[in-house]
Amino acid sequence: SKKTMKEKNISYSNRGKSLEDYIDETNVYYLHRNIAVIHKKPVPVQIVKVEYPSRSAAVIREAYFRTPSTTDYNGVFNGAYIDFDAKETENKTSFPLKNVHAHQVKHMEGIANQQGISFLIVRFTSLDRYFIVPCVMLLAAWKRMLDGGRKSIPLSDFEEQAIEIHLGLTPRLDYLKAITTLLP
Amino acid sequence: SKKTMKEKNISYSNRGKSLEDYIDETNVYYLHRNIAVIHKKPVPVQIVKVEYPSRSAAVIREAYFRTPSTTDYNGVFNGAYIDFDAKETENKTSFPLKNVHAHQVKHMEGIANQQGISFLIVRFTSLDRYFIVPCVMLLAAWKRMLDGGRKSIPLSDFEEQAIEIHLGLTPRLDYLKAITTLLP
Ligand SMILES: [Mg+2]
Ligand SMILES: [Mg+2]
Repeated sequence: SKKTMKEKNISYSNRGKSLEDYIDETNVYYLHRNIAVIHKKPVPVQIVKVEYPSRSAAVIREAYFRTPSTTDYNGVFNGAYIDFDAKETENKTSFPLKNVHAHQVKHMEGIANQQGISFLIVRFTSLDRYFIVPCVMLLAAWKRMLDGGRKSIPLSDFEEQAIEIHLGLTPRLDYLKAITTLLP
Repeated sequence: SKKTMKEKNISYSNRGKSLEDYIDETNVYYLHRNIAVIHKKPVPVQIVKVEYPSRSAAVIREAYFRTPSTTDYNGVFNGAYIDFDAKETENKTSFPLKNVHAHQVKHMEGIANQQGISFLIVRFTSLDRYFIVPCVMLLAAWKRMLDGGRKSIPLSDFEEQAIEIHLGLTPRLDYLKAITTLLP
């Protein structure tokens, strides 16, 4: 059907480029232009066994993925501490809060208490739409869920309370331009 | 000899507690008291092969250590972006600059350009003395080396230009208290 074709085209155009790819490219752009110093943290692993072959590099032979206790990205932008995580959903009508971990929410709350700027960058992959979710918006939705309310944030809330970003060429995803209203 | 005995005692008293252990304990203290949110970054590894045994966690079977492109610690303290690395030397009279990587110096320079606070925490392990080396002090020593000067920072420079910290009980190494003069 026509609908299926269109969906295929959309997913084809995004193939191989994740939200994190766009953010990484943007961070390199920011770094090279002296706009900001923001990096993705390495994936945390628990290393159990390492081999040291002679004349070559050490090889990790047994290790396990650990749950990150923070968000994936942080850095500094013109004196402001910047801290965020990237989230993608295939959902077309809402962002399921199961994509966010309780320890990440707690971390973001701690950042806000220290006058840092924290947020999520959410991509609705099927819609190819990108939003900045400020910490306060996430905390309100999280509290609503804990109080027995809905376990997701509807797209309409994004349209009203989040900050939409559009993909560009250089940089790909100019999220720092989008967060000026969040800065002190 | 007596000298050997003394050296043995000193190294025994520090056994198993690295500078990074002290910093990690201090960061947990800061976090729990809502003083600051500062974390050590995970060790960066290049993952090559992962096994997925049924009914158990994924196991990384081949991975390699990568050179970190930044410093090990960063976070936020009362609105300020904090960024530093921990360095230990057995040397009793100077700190060899080979302990610092060129990309770390470049990173710290970038942080300074963004009005972030960056520094090294250096431990003279044999002397059991701890110093904060502000970014400007490190950059000056680095430039002196590149200009053909000495490849280390003498202890006397530490005593004159760095900020000495003394170990405490809680927190173990109150480095945030020591950097107040570096804050905006
Ligand atoms: Mg993520
Ligand atoms: Mg280090």
